[in-house]
Amino acid sequence: MDSSDADSGGREAPTSDPTDRDAACFEAGIKFGALYHQFAGTPVSPESAPSLETAMEDAIENQPFCERVTVDILTEKLAAEMTGGYTELTGRFVEVEIVVDHEGVEVVTRMEMEDGYPLMRIDSVSEP
Amino acid sequence: MDSSDADSGGREAPTSDPTDRDAACFEAGIKFGALYHQFAGTPVSPESAPSLETAMEDAIENQPFCERVTVDILTEKLAAEMTGGYTELTGRFVEVEIVVDHEGVEVVTRMEMEDGYPLMRIDSVSEP
Amino acid sequence: MDSSDADSGGREAPTSDPTDRDAACFEAGIKFGALYHQFAGTPVSPESAPSLETAMEDAIENQPFCERVTVDILTEKLAAEMTGGYTELTGRFVEVEIVVDHEGVEVVTRMEMEDGYPLMRIDSVSEP
Amino acid sequence: MDSSDADSGGREAPTSDPTDRDAACFEAGIKFGALYHQFAGTPVSPESAPSLETAMEDAIENQPFCERVTVDILTEKLAAEMTGGYTELTGRFVEVEIVVDHEGVEVVTRMEMEDGYPLMRIDSVSEP
Repeated sequence: MDSSDADSGGREAPTSDPTDRDAACFEAGIKFGALYHQFAGTPVSPESAPSLETAMEDAIENQPFCERVTVDILTEKLAAEMTGGYTELTGRFVEVEIVVDHEGVEVVTRMEMEDGYPLMRIDSVSEP
Repeated sequence: MDSSDADSGGREAPTSDPTDRDAACFEAGIKFGALYHQFAGTPVSPESAPSLETAMEDAIENQPFCERVTVDILTEKLAAEMTGGYTELTGRFVEVEIVVDHEGVEVVTRMEMEDGYPLMRIDSVSEP
Repeated sequence: MDSSDADSGGREAPTSDPTDRDAACFEAGIKFGALYHQFAGTPVSPESAPSLETAMEDAIENQPFCERVTVDILTEKLAAEMTGGYTELTGRFVEVEIVVDHEGVEVVTRMEMEDGYPLMRIDSVSEP
Repeated sequence: MDSSDADSGGREAPTSDPTDRDAACFEAGIKFGALYHQFAGTPVSPESAPSLETAMEDAIENQPFCERVTVDILTEKLAAEMTGGYTELTGRFVEVEIVVDHEGVEVVTRMEMEDGYPLMRIDSVSEP
């Protein structure tokens, strides 16, 4: 299934074991996917946003290697799109920073809207 | 598709439009299903349980006709079953009371463990 | 906390134990809340919609008293709102019918868009 | 906020921009977190497991850079732990392989039980 393992001669992609840096980036991604898909769909209003922010931060900080999670729900944007006093949490309404430390490699990651899509990306990687 | 509508003679189940009482019980069920399936799987520890309780209450109270939600995460039980400092929220770790008021019909509902299964049930219904 | 229990004289709301009909309506609501909040946020495209429909139906039909679940993902609407080839499942993109049978009481329930909001409602109740 | 940027003299962790390899590992993590937290809690039985496997694969394959998702629900294990004919999906019951390709870097990742905990890890990374 994995064509990179093919030993059919010629040039091929070198396959290597994951480094600590790879694992740290992978772990940061896990936290992002977890945070987003656990809480997307939650009923939220400007009034309930603060407790949801705190719960999202505290929940994901439980996960291994997770140093710090900062969640900012964009309450003005949310207020502008509500129906009947609330709406459902989705990427348009939230900015997130997650810092992971795995074996001394610190990865700073972020989610923000870009071109109408909630983009998750790595800001920086610091190796020991 | 609905066999109760069959007019094949003999006795049949009388089909009726929903009453306000029916709708109030239905609404209470929606809140329970929403609360459970939105938050099941959330990473939780005794330390993060209080903020999760508050967020669950505030989130579901946003929904229509929802008067009051009370969530109690059973932190001793949770502590006893953790791996690596946390676990995932599931019905074994939580007791919930939800009160709905729809067109003056108040429905008090509850979730507790019964025979090893998190049972959701109606406690009482009050009509105007 | 429960104003219906107030014995302040005069008329008061009669509080009663739940009937089989109440419980059937409550159970139908649970299925709806569960279906919606379990699957809201799932990445979905016109190509992956059929397998998601089937999985949603099969998953919720596992729950007690659940006779039949029919999920229809509105792929044209979904195609019109996609970014980058997919979007997240939400109430705008799905119509659902759930039939519950509890102690012989059959409840037919439905979710459809109404005034821009995914409205869940009881269609009919049949008592034995 | 990021202490690694401190230029207070002495040795410090070198902070660098993310590479394509970093981003590929991050993307693989996102898919894993998404898959797990979107579907954890879904009612599942041996009968409904196949449609859930397919829906999980198809849903996550919608996401950017996701080449291939393989989900295997462990139906014997699931059957042994059911109450009332079904249970809720959790890491104990599922093995997953996800392959991501980002800018030519292929990352093969896997989730399996290890020491009673559903461990997600990178198997291999292939650079172009």
